[in-house]
Amino acid sequence: MKRARVAYSGAIHGAVEVDDRLKLDDGRIVDENEVVWLPPVQPRTVFALGLNYADHAKELAFKAPTEPLVFLKGPNTFVGHRAQTRRPADATYMHYECELAVVIGRPARKVKREDAYSYVAGYTVSNDYAIRDYLENYYRPNLRVKNRDTCTPIGPWLVDANDVDDPMNVTLRTYVNGNLTQEGTTRDMIFDIPALIEYLSSFMTLNEGDIILTGTPEGLVDTAVGDEIVTEIEGIGRLVNTIVGDDSFPKS
Amino acid sequence: MKRARVAYSGAIHGAVEVDDRLKLDDGRIVDENEVVWLPPVQPRTVFALGLNYADHAKELAFKAPTEPLVFLKGPNTFVGHRAQTRRPADATYMHYECELAVVIGRPARKVKREDAYSYVAGYTVSNDYAIRDYLENYYRPNLRVKNRDTCTPIGPWLVDANDVDDPMNVTLRTYVNGNLTQEGTTRDMIFDIPALIEYLSSFMTLNEGDIILTGTPEGLVDTAVGDEIVTEIEGIGRLVNTIVGDDSFPKS
Repeated sequence: MKRARVAYSGAIHGAVEVDDRLKLDDGRIVDENEVVWLPPVQPRTVFALGLNYADHAKELAFKAPTEPLVFLKGPNTFVGHRAQTRRPADATYMHYECELAVVIGRPARKVKREDAYSYVAGYTVSNDYAIRDYLENYYRPNLRVKNRDTCTPIGPWLVDANDVDDPMNVTLRTYVNGNLTQEGTTRDMIFDIPALIEYLSSFMTLNEGDIILTGTPEGLVDTAVGDEIVTEIEGIGRLVNTIVGDDSFPKS
Repeated sequence: MKRARVAYSGAIHGAVEVDDRLKLDDGRIVDENEVVWLPPVQPRTVFALGLNYADHAKELAFKAPTEPLVFLKGPNTFVGHRAQTRRPADATYMHYECELAVVIGRPARKVKREDAYSYVAGYTVSNDYAIRDYLENYYRPNLRVKNRDTCTPIGPWLVDANDVDDPMNVTLRTYVNGNLTQEGTTRDMIFDIPALIEYLSSFMTLNEGDIILTGTPEGLVDTAVGDEIVTEIEGIGRLVNTIVGDDSFPKS
């Protein structure tokens, strides 16, 4: 089963896919271009991993971390499938990052890795854009790198954990205007999903709806206003995003 | 006007103070020991400042930062007035940090410092405990330092901005079991409230209900199980917290 969250006719609805259309929780069937796609899970606590694929760490000329480099992201940065993302006016380098997003299903505290998957509700796709200009520091991507408004598309679907045979063996791909520019596999994560759940739950409680963005493999290129960026994970989803200029968002 | 958020008789209520008792939004008047105090604002995006008082940076043997060191905190860490905070079993050093918390009142984007106060709804008190064992890095206090469950008491009151003459000239004090151990003034902040709002809103949107924890002055000492920690800010509030052992929270 895979589920979306969409806005339609003045309200927010859960939705499933039926014959390439969307069936809302109230039974109506609508075309996907009639809705606004929202993040499939309302972002609450969102953890993100820095440098969790060894090839990507090397690409950035950093050494691979010896424990997970985890930071938090605020709700302002999330948008759904088919959203516009604003390229900040002060950005020289804006890289996409295709990432597998793990959604927690129930409270997890001091969980051992062999039990970790039982705490996972499902998976979705994220594009955790980075404004590389401000990445001056190994340990802490600052808010200007990783917390810009609209710079973390997520979706379209929350795919049930039971429907994903092996999340540690799926292919991630990014396409810029139809051209494949990034390809990797979750097999290359440094800290795998059970390790991340064990690590985080060892010192805090993970709650239902918390999301872990598990990092991105190598293959990053700069993006420009007008680009269509598609991040795709095998069996999980295909997330479409378009980059617009900063002047499309006037000053408040 | 100052307002609390409390749980009473199966529901969450707004409350004001009347003759040392609490008047709920539904008109009932109750004693404060009949309620559970909650954070006066439901934590959404919470920004926290590292090393924002020069004396405190010196105390930790760090150089004062040249731009705000800001990190995010997750909702798991917040508790209200009179809560129990768990001292993690792996902590050797657990320091309180009395901090002025600034609550944003309306969306703020690209705000200039001269307009910054018009975006503030009010103020409250926070105790942003730090597990110093894990503070290995200047730029990024990792999640084990600053994101433990229950380790950020906040409250009791949200005090209207209009009722605080000059938030940049108030005294902060911490008492451990009745003994004054920390005393400072917001005058000593490196980046003042208008500077922080200007900085954050220059690259992202601050939204209604967002909270900025503005850092702590010098005077940190270790705390132990059984301690009562009172963090107090002149004209804003007096926040009481008790430290309990980790074994009071069994494994899930």
